[in-house]
Amino acid sequence: MSKVAVIGAGSWGTALSIVLADNGCEVAIYARRQEQVDEINHQHTNHRYLPDITLPANIVAYPSYRQVLEGAQYVLIALPTAAIRTALREMVKELDHCPLLIHSSKGLEPDTYKRVSEMIAEEVPESKRRGIVVLSGPSHAEEVSRRSPTTVVVAAPELKQAEEVQDLFINQHFRVYTNTDMLGVEIGGALKNIIALGAGLSDGLGYGDNAKAALMTRGLTEIARLGVQMGAHPLTFAGLAGVGDLIVTCTSRHSRNWRCGYAIGQGKPLNEVLQSMGMVVEGVRTTKAAYQIAQDKKVEMPITKELYHVLFEGKSPRQAVDDLMGRGRTHEMESRFFDDFNRYF
Amino acid sequence: MSKVAVIGAGSWGTALSIVLADNGCEVAIYARRQEQVDEINHQHTNHRYLPDITLPANIVAYPSYRQVLEGAQYVLIALPTAAIRTALREMVKELDHCPLLIHSSKGLEPDTYKRVSEMIAEEVPESKRRGIVVLSGPSHAEEVSRRSPTTVVVAAPELKQAEEVQDLFINQHFRVYTNTDMLGVEIGGALKNIIALGAGLSDGLGYGDNAKAALMTRGLTEIARLGVQMGAHPLTFAGLAGVGDLIVTCTSRHSRNWRCGYAIGQGKPLNEVLQSMGMVVEGVRTTKAAYQIAQDKKVEMPITKELYHVLFEGKSPRQAVDDLMGRGRTHEMESRFFDDFNRYF
Repeated sequence: MSKVAVIGAGSWGTALSIVLADNGCEVAIYARRQEQVDEINHQHTNHRYLPDITLPANIVAYPSYRQVLEGAQYVLIALPTAAIRTALREMVKELDHCPLLIHSSKGLEPDTYKRVSEMIAEEVPESKRRGIVVLSGPSHAEEVSRRSPTTVVVAAPELKQAEEVQDLFINQHFRVYTNTDMLGVEIGGALKNIIALGAGLSDGLGYGDNAKAALMTRGLTEIARLGVQMGAHPLTFAGLAGVGDLIVTCTSRHSRNWRCGYAIGQGKPLNEVLQSMGMVVEGVRTTKAAYQIAQDKKVEMPITKELYHVLFEGKSPRQAVDDLMGRGRTHEMESRFFDDFNRYF
Repeated sequence: MSKVAVIGAGSWGTALSIVLADNGCEVAIYARRQEQVDEINHQHTNHRYLPDITLPANIVAYPSYRQVLEGAQYVLIALPTAAIRTALREMVKELDHCPLLIHSSKGLEPDTYKRVSEMIAEEVPESKRRGIVVLSGPSHAEEVSRRSPTTVVVAAPELKQAEEVQDLFINQHFRVYTNTDMLGVEIGGALKNIIALGAGLSDGLGYGDNAKAALMTRGLTEIARLGVQMGAHPLTFAGLAGVGDLIVTCTSRHSRNWRCGYAIGQGKPLNEVLQSMGMVVEGVRTTKAAYQIAQDKKVEMPITKELYHVLFEGKSPRQAVDDLMGRGRTHEMESRFFDDFNRYF
């Protein structure tokens, strides 16, 4: 029976712990606050993050990295992107063996724009990790915790390691696909938040399903275009970490990014929206990151560019949509995109 | 100023007539019933299909093909797939010049499984058509008639003809992209109805957003796989006639296909559902067509196969989902799909 250490006792870390526990793993979950540790171990709940869910008894929480990591063949990191580097630095001090590291965070590091696997590679010495694998896809934590049918993708440069993680997680409710394009899966998960913001903005402006589907489709094209320039495989964006996650994020009113875009579409200024939401909206930071990377790499991203102008330069959302609609005539498969494909096939 | 003949005074034909009239075209629309002709010409409404919309004065209806076709440089065919062949046979008798033919119907001909452009090529002699162009994409007619932002794709084997139709339709509310993969655009528009049915079924079973996004993503993969085998370009399915139309159809509760799937997911038998809806559900016929084409061409379509078993062989929807979730482990990019890509690039 495998032992898995889970770093992060929020909704996603807890939901994935349930999958692992259902599969017979011994799950040791790290929680900083003693009261949360006690709640998980005695009430078998984590009510702040997953109300009304009873946790299997083989999920045990500890307030120390040492206890959580001890003897774990796998370490799953499920933290907000901005918290990962600090956590890794603390964790690595207590790590004295060589597990397979899995992460399930979607986003880029603020300011550096690094992917989570890059942060892990920088902070955890090679002697302390057998490999790095990412898990992503269209997956509301709450639905996973209720064992509602869900599919995800796990990606690692080495297929064997992705398959090992596939075997660890797969069950009758949780279907796991593999992919070897780790970079593409990480980029897809991060950039889709830009489009979710745009979808919310379109809804906030009172536009219809046609406009939103257009934004999602053309948005997918441009994030794939940037992803491919960054080294991703184009087909990854047609998969679960691309279009799949895009669909869930853009069509759910629970998505923070959608809600933020919606409020801006209704005419509220960004500062006010962010303040009233009281939490990080990854898509705002990711729009800035993608805009700057696209400038550097000379990749055309019309939707991201207009969103950037709206978010950071006070452009009116309606004018931004008008400008998007009024661009020159475009062929659906631009030659640049074809060139990118040609590099791969 | 161009004259356009529009065959079909339903919601889609009328909505596209508004776009053309806004662009300054002289629009002659064919309507069989004299009272509808009078309503369009005198009240400037078509209330049965587009309630609350006032039609521009440069849309004129006629009850005869001869009057509609006379001097038209373009003929737009906007009819249900099952009605097209008969209409073409009547129309062609009255056609004595050589216009560009455009169609905007999504589906395959019942029994023959032919695409609309194939029917047109069979029924209209080459001397009476300058070319055939398809218009498709994520576009509820009602939103188009309200001039809400919409994007579509026009495709023809010759880019020049697609561009000509792009110029005809494009305006500030209606953005038109071109593509030269006419077959792919037609196949995408037809096959997406299968997945809409499946999405409704998943919702009807009470499954969540994760399950629906999984179904849409993996559904897109398998319709692309079949489309490519039939001769389509894989990238077309990542575009407006593929993922774009899929999103609109699967997430709108107005979609007939979604509603039919929903009722079946809730346990109602197909006959009863079809009877109570009182109209054609394209996705039911298309599931049968795709299942049979996939068998012939030996293309793996697990979702279509399970839907076929549910619709035509009485399999329980829940068992079908269980069987989909419990299949063997799968790599996200199957080698077969890669082989298809390799043929193109």
